[in-house]
Amino acid sequence: MIGRRGATRAVRVARHRREGIERTRDDLAVEEPLEIRVSRVAGGARRVSEALAVTMRTPGDDFELVAGFLHGEGVVPCVEALEELTYCRGNGRRSDQGYNVVEARLAPGVTFDAEALRRNFFTSSSCGVCGKASLESVEARGCRPVESDLTLEADVLASLPERLREGQDVFSRTGGLHAAGLFTAGGACSVVREDVGRHNAVDKAVGHMLLRRGLPAADQVLVVSGRASFDILQKAVTASVPVVVAVGAPSSLAVDLAGRFGVTLAGFARDGAFNVYVGEERVH
Amino acid sequence: MIGRRGATRAVRVARHRREGIERTRDDLAVEEPLEIRVSRVAGGARRVSEALAVTMRTPGDDFELVAGFLHGEGVVPCVEALEELTYCRGNGRRSDQGYNVVEARLAPGVTFDAEALRRNFFTSSSCGVCGKASLESVEARGCRPVESDLTLEADVLASLPERLREGQDVFSRTGGLHAAGLFTAGGACSVVREDVGRHNAVDKAVGHMLLRRGLPAADQVLVVSGRASFDILQKAVTASVPVVVAVGAPSSLAVDLAGRFGVTLAGFARDGAFNVYVGEERVH
Repeated sequence: MIGRRGATRAVRVARHRREGIERTRDDLAVEEPLEIRVSRVAGGARRVSEALAVTMRTPGDDFELVAGFLHGEGVVPCVEALEELTYCRGNGRRSDQGYNVVEARLAPGVTFDAEALRRNFFTSSSCGVCGKASLESVEARGCRPVESDLTLEADVLASLPERLREGQDVFSRTGGLHAAGLFTAGGACSVVREDVGRHNAVDKAVGHMLLRRGLPAADQVLVVSGRASFDILQKAVTASVPVVVAVGAPSSLAVDLAGRFGVTLAGFARDGAFNVYVGEERVH
Repeated sequence: MIGRRGATRAVRVARHRREGIERTRDDLAVEEPLEIRVSRVAGGARRVSEALAVTMRTPGDDFELVAGFLHGEGVVPCVEALEELTYCRGNGRRSDQGYNVVEARLAPGVTFDAEALRRNFFTSSSCGVCGKASLESVEARGCRPVESDLTLEADVLASLPERLREGQDVFSRTGGLHAAGLFTAGGACSVVREDVGRHNAVDKAVGHMLLRRGLPAADQVLVVSGRASFDILQKAVTASVPVVVAVGAPSSLAVDLAGRFGVTLAGFARDGAFNVYVGEERVH
């Protein structure tokens, strides 16, 4: 959980208020790049290690972040596909970079197309370029509608944003970080993770479940502190999460994706109220 | 400006309130993919067109988005480098995809390394993987400290978030979209743009200035509705914007980047107050 050393940094700040200027200190959320490397058996006993992505993230729970990212991209469908996660230190790297490179060592037999995955980051799917094609691309990646008999009470759903805040570190309650959490239908907290990046917070929470053999998370509710966009719903579907609750607004494509894959989507969850955009049958 | 056809979509929603459930309609911010293509003269009169990136965006001001994106990536340093911006329709594309592909036609003689640019999206710079290396990579791309004698009054700065909201469409005032605006030191609005993506809103605002020959924007203040992270500051530096005001929190790397490139950075600008993290000499 955030709050560990390295996740925040104190700086001097000039607070301008109507009554004057106060010079004081403030804690910032740290943002640093993380390089995600994957090592796989390429043939015989030979291993190939390559950089797959760099993400700007808040240090902390890096292994969970990498595990969740690779799960979301379809590289690591289950924890058995993952042999080891390590920081890549040494090898001529500057000492201050030692904790900014994580390598995921895939189990023998686990393969993936690194080039195709990289292309995914910047080009469109073969299905075309529109909302419908984006939904089809999720299907093409092997995602199926979420199967879950989870239902939850409206009162519990309404309480989840507050429970998410309670799970956050004191610093981040001040508003500096995004948070994502997984909760049971009864409202019990399974995990809360934080990051400067919305998608990273979700990856950390999903990665936590993956490493603890908690996927598919068909008995969990995903709560996010911000908006619900296409990428957040895509991660939820990949993890088989049946209910997503956003404190902010959902986008049109998030609602479409939720509808197509059987996910209940609630937005504007605040002050004891919320809107259900799709999948109302799970809320009673 | 958003509010045009295609930027919002009405859906049915169940509003859960303490006093009961109201079934009504809600307007969602539309999120659709946009493929950014670049056409350049490859040799003789031969032109090569290739896809550079796909971004999830809210339709509207797409040409500005593409212009701002390409400026931020260093492909289009000035408006003269851009011969034309067009939607790619036809060519066997499904009719609903006609407005989701934009091609930027570069002027003869304008070149760039598409492969290197794509690599930038997913791998780390040659400088290494840490905050310092990230700052060095901005320098390596040719960015220099912002030169500007702009100063502004604290009262004006404090009023900018409200002016940004006034520049937004009625729908987005309800909280569904990110906004970015450029203002003069006197508080006059030059442009306000909105998007489901924070970075897209900034690209649209910067692209607007590029297309109207308003860059470098050394006489402008950038105001963003959300947080200030590394990528937002990078875009500001590339556009030579001397002051960035965020309604949300800045990250550590945003403060570092602002400090290194001579940008004044204010955060938590709300309710008539704000914090200045670096570059206080421009605020009086």
